[in-house]
Amino acid sequence: MTGPEDVAVTELRVRYAETDAMGVAYYANYFVWFELGRTDWIRGRGMTYREFEERGILLPVVEAHCAYKASARYDDLVRVETTVVALNPARVSFAYRAARVAPDGAGDGGILLAEGCTDHVFLTREGRITRLNRYPELWEMLSGAGAAGRREGGRGVA
Amino acid sequence: MTGPEDVAVTELRVRYAETDAMGVAYYANYFVWFELGRTDWIRGRGMTYREFEERGILLPVVEAHCAYKASARYDDLVRVETTVVALNPARVSFAYRAARVAPDGAGDGGILLAEGCTDHVFLTREGRITRLNRYPELWEMLSGAGAAGRREGGRGVA
Amino acid sequence: MTGPEDVAVTELRVRYAETDAMGVAYYANYFVWFELGRTDWIRGRGMTYREFEERGILLPVVEAHCAYKASARYDDLVRVETTVVALNPARVSFAYRAARVAPDGAGDGGILLAEGCTDHVFLTREGRITRLNRYPELWEMLSGAGAAGRREGGRGVA
Amino acid sequence: MTGPEDVAVTELRVRYAETDAMGVAYYANYFVWFELGRTDWIRGRGMTYREFEERGILLPVVEAHCAYKASARYDDLVRVETTVVALNPARVSFAYRAARVAPDGAGDGGILLAEGCTDHVFLTREGRITRLNRYPELWEMLSGAGAAGRREGGRGVA
Repeated sequence: MTGPEDVAVTELRVRYAETDAMGVAYYANYFVWFELGRTDWIRGRGMTYREFEERGILLPVVEAHCAYKASARYDDLVRVETTVVALNPARVSFAYRAARVAPDGAGDGGILLAEGCTDHVFLTREGRITRLNRYPELWEMLSGAGAAGRREGGRGVA
Repeated sequence: MTGPEDVAVTELRVRYAETDAMGVAYYANYFVWFELGRTDWIRGRGMTYREFEERGILLPVVEAHCAYKASARYDDLVRVETTVVALNPARVSFAYRAARVAPDGAGDGGILLAEGCTDHVFLTREGRITRLNRYPELWEMLSGAGAAGRREGGRGVA
Repeated sequence: MTGPEDVAVTELRVRYAETDAMGVAYYANYFVWFELGRTDWIRGRGMTYREFEERGILLPVVEAHCAYKASARYDDLVRVETTVVALNPARVSFAYRAARVAPDGAGDGGILLAEGCTDHVFLTREGRITRLNRYPELWEMLSGAGAAGRREGGRGVA
Repeated sequence: MTGPEDVAVTELRVRYAETDAMGVAYYANYFVWFELGRTDWIRGRGMTYREFEERGILLPVVEAHCAYKASARYDDLVRVETTVVALNPARVSFAYRAARVAPDGAGDGGILLAEGCTDHVFLTREGRITRLNRYPELWEMLSGAGAAGRREGGRGVA
């Protein structure tokens, strides 16, 4: 199960399409990788962001930040670690750490490439900002309360 | 007015984001540029592709082809010439010619970069393939019949 | 080992960044997925495309084609199967089959999304077209001759 | 001429490729638009970023931020205003304001879409961080000193 303190780990390889004429991954693509990270974080909760949207709730980004520390090249193996650093019914904030890892897994944390964060609000399909606790099932899932409940019942989420 | 034989001319500069580690525009981006070309071709008809979608008709790509002749680098000025090479109520086919042009306009046709084509069907919002002549206003617009009518009436489309 | 007839299998999930306002994967992104497919095909030969570039040989695309059969949506699991359909010292041609597969692996081949192909020449860093058999190590690797030799020696590549 | 206080204005239309399944421009693409903005800011100085690279100096992004205020849809006309908010030999910081403008130019400043900033260092082709004043021609150009000199000489840059 994924708790609020939990870390989702996403691994990806730098695509040729993601490099630029400097020979390294173009800076905007880190925000795409961060999207993969939060997708995996939500999946770790036992549901998918797609299900959020199917139930009419979108999580648009209202703020995004990234500090770049080193470059990633084509075919580099990149590990994105994603956590939720703040969560209330009006807003959720994700933090990300992207590192280049050796193919053989050597070198624990890898070379730090970038650290970033994104803030999201909850939006209905009609474009109205809402509070997620109006949707108990989604709120319990995202906040981990539902999962905790299920865990107590001995039906832990894989 | 734009007739079936008409050419829409789109000019763009190669974005840094569009280059790759070879130092040239990544091959998939030509299909993005072709999209700009057909957007402009439709605009030349006096309407926009956005209006197509607002009226419930989508033009998904069913086939795409591109032959690459030379490379484009960051900040190169690229001219895309777009024509409709086939049009019937079930399908529309666009052809494209992308060339690098000198900033000062010197050298008529420029250096040929790529030639491509895309085929599209007409799709309703519900995902059903349709024939465009069921939507007379759209059909007349795309085929130029409506424009021709207006032209005869002395109200030519700019 | 990968023989000329071998198939590289690449699995990916459709990124939110790859969708468009139609709600499906944007058509140009299939060519990005094909790039992942040929990267994996070369990896299956026991080397990487990155090593090609490090030895001064690029494989630019000179022709690309895709026929679209069905749409992929956000978070869909897509399997790309890549084969080499033609290979000589002047040119290599890859063919691709992209299918949507059920998360649980149910349904053998999946729903066919698209079929495509790309043709590549061999280019030196200086931008000169070359024949790959001038680079025996690369040529044997790509053509499988080297691998076959190793296979006969009982040292098959994983 | 462009002074340190000057604003570069870039206009673009939202590409279909830039939209996502929410029907709006994907958040990472604002950073691509910001890149167009700083390209134009540098061009306003009478040189191009491409010339920077040709002289061996790269301007990689070390920090990027964006606050999103409203959404942009396909074919929306977007105006990006770019300024330099800090400049010293070790670093340059750009600020951006992206707004949706009415096609007819009505509504002065448009609807604010996003505000962002990026910080850049100066890097040699060999990957070493440098100070731009070691390259007087580039430094004078970027800081406006060279342009001022030329202006005094009555040969103002267009």
